[in-house]
Amino acid sequence: MDINERIRERIENAINDSLAIVQAETAPKRLSAAVDYAMRPGGARIRPRIVLSVAMACGDDRPAISDAAAAALELMHCASLVHDDLPCFDDAGFRRGKPSVHNAFSEPLAVLAGDCLIMAAFETLAGTAELDATRAAALILTLARRSGMPDGICAGQGWESEDRIDLGTYHRTKTGALFIAATQMGAIAAGQPPEPWFGLGDRIGEAFQVADDLRDALADAETTGKPSGQDDRMERPNAVAKLGVSGAMERLGEILDSAKTSIPSCPGDAMLAEMVTAEARRMMPYLSGDAGSDAR
Amino acid sequence: MDINERIRERIENAINDSLAIVQAETAPKRLSAAVDYAMRPGGARIRPRIVLSVAMACGDDRPAISDAAAAALELMHCASLVHDDLPCFDDAGFRRGKPSVHNAFSEPLAVLAGDCLIMAAFETLAGTAELDATRAAALILTLARRSGMPDGICAGQGWESEDRIDLGTYHRTKTGALFIAATQMGAIAAGQPPEPWFGLGDRIGEAFQVADDLRDALADAETTGKPSGQDDRMERPNAVAKLGVSGAMERLGEILDSAKTSIPSCPGDAMLAEMVTAEARRMMPYLSGDAGSDAR
Repeated sequence: MDINERIRERIENAINDSLAIVQAETAPKRLSAAVDYAMRPGGARIRPRIVLSVAMACGDDRPAISDAAAAALELMHCASLVHDDLPCFDDAGFRRGKPSVHNAFSEPLAVLAGDCLIMAAFETLAGTAELDATRAAALILTLARRSGMPDGICAGQGWESEDRIDLGTYHRTKTGALFIAATQMGAIAAGQPPEPWFGLGDRIGEAFQVADDLRDALADAETTGKPSGQDDRMERPNAVAKLGVSGAMERLGEILDSAKTSIPSCPGDAMLAEMVTAEARRMMPYLSGDAGSDAR
Repeated sequence: MDINERIRERIENAINDSLAIVQAETAPKRLSAAVDYAMRPGGARIRPRIVLSVAMACGDDRPAISDAAAAALELMHCASLVHDDLPCFDDAGFRRGKPSVHNAFSEPLAVLAGDCLIMAAFETLAGTAELDATRAAALILTLARRSGMPDGICAGQGWESEDRIDLGTYHRTKTGALFIAATQMGAIAAGQPPEPWFGLGDRIGEAFQVADDLRDALADAETTGKPSGQDDRMERPNAVAKLGVSGAMERLGEILDSAKTSIPSCPGDAMLAEMVTAEARRMMPYLSGDAGSDAR
């Protein structure tokens, strides 16, 4: 089996394991269905793919822990999408080409589905303590920090309620945080210290944001599954608005080069550099001519 | 210092420690203010008081861990109140005698403040891993389970979107879950197994629910800080509606007796029985003639 296919299978199996707990026979049926709807089918699963890629580059001596880390991060990411789509935030009617959770179910069930996914993420990680309690706790600490305040996605979303906003801080928290979590959780899952992995996650997050800004500005609604020009309409800070299309593309190339050089020395560092190139191609289907892929 | 005063001080200090991380200088100011507003001044802090009472009854050999457990549980409880008050759920304009978070700030900031408090709860617990990673992970597992699905407060709230609902399951998840978490987290924090402590938490939760139903039916809006007759108007299951006022009071007495007999044998079991009596008095100010106290 191809390595990408194997990673994909590990991620889906790990997500299924997490959801099996949440969606027990005794759970309320509609909320259970809303949670499922929020998670399946997924998008590109880019964050958990980074977790497993980094874990494998570091030896991946406890695959059950890295699987749990990958699933937990994707649960958290999907929770944030469900809450971000709510009428009081983006008021997004569609996500990944189908009605958003609050649109398909109800607003209460969307708030609760997001909350449930957050709890399930931490429950999944805590469940690995029987294998290694120290790694489990370190994974939880990293995920909580990169999801909350002041350095996580909650802070990122919170910046949108401020009058003055720094573009760098906004992007690093709103989009970058879960990519930093991805590289660091991959390292922790494999028994390595997280600190050297900050730079790679930070760069990938920055690249993803610029690519997203470009996609949002250039692509039509059909390709991305969400209305185009959304950031512009919401008056949110945007790399294309600041640098123009060609400036943003140039910036993207620089960030990706910087991402590759930031990879810490490890058994799989060459493989990781290839992964960054592959992700860059996935992020920019309109540049490479590949079929469009929803990278969120 | 009186033991109750000492417990109160430990709880407030621990909550302040948790909030200090979230409300760092680099955090967005409005969200930071919303988080503060949701936590201070608090209600009766009954759940963290139970955590510390059980931990102390079990020897409390690592007070820093039980303090973190108490704070984390209260953060989770307050997060649930902020989300439950949202327009799409209870649409509560007031809480604890002041405007609810979405009313005082905005709906986006209320959703985010709740999310932030959830993350801060888990971050607080993960931070105790340097003292004891096994206890930290066990605390996180218990808190996540009793907050999510199928056995936590998310499931409880989710039952309100179902056509058919079992009163026992509904109350055990919606109200009981965090009391079960309280007794079990107190035990875990002191290095004891959580299982024997299920019964006490479950009984206290049941008593609290019946007392809340009674208060809701009998008290006026001024005393509880929320509109009276709310459950009745929302057509939610309610012990008073099912048993009548005198039947519900009788039931409350039975549950409290059962709670006291369910206390596992431990160095502080007599002290705990006294605590249950004291909490009962606090729950039912209209029976004992004490000054009204907002027990939420």
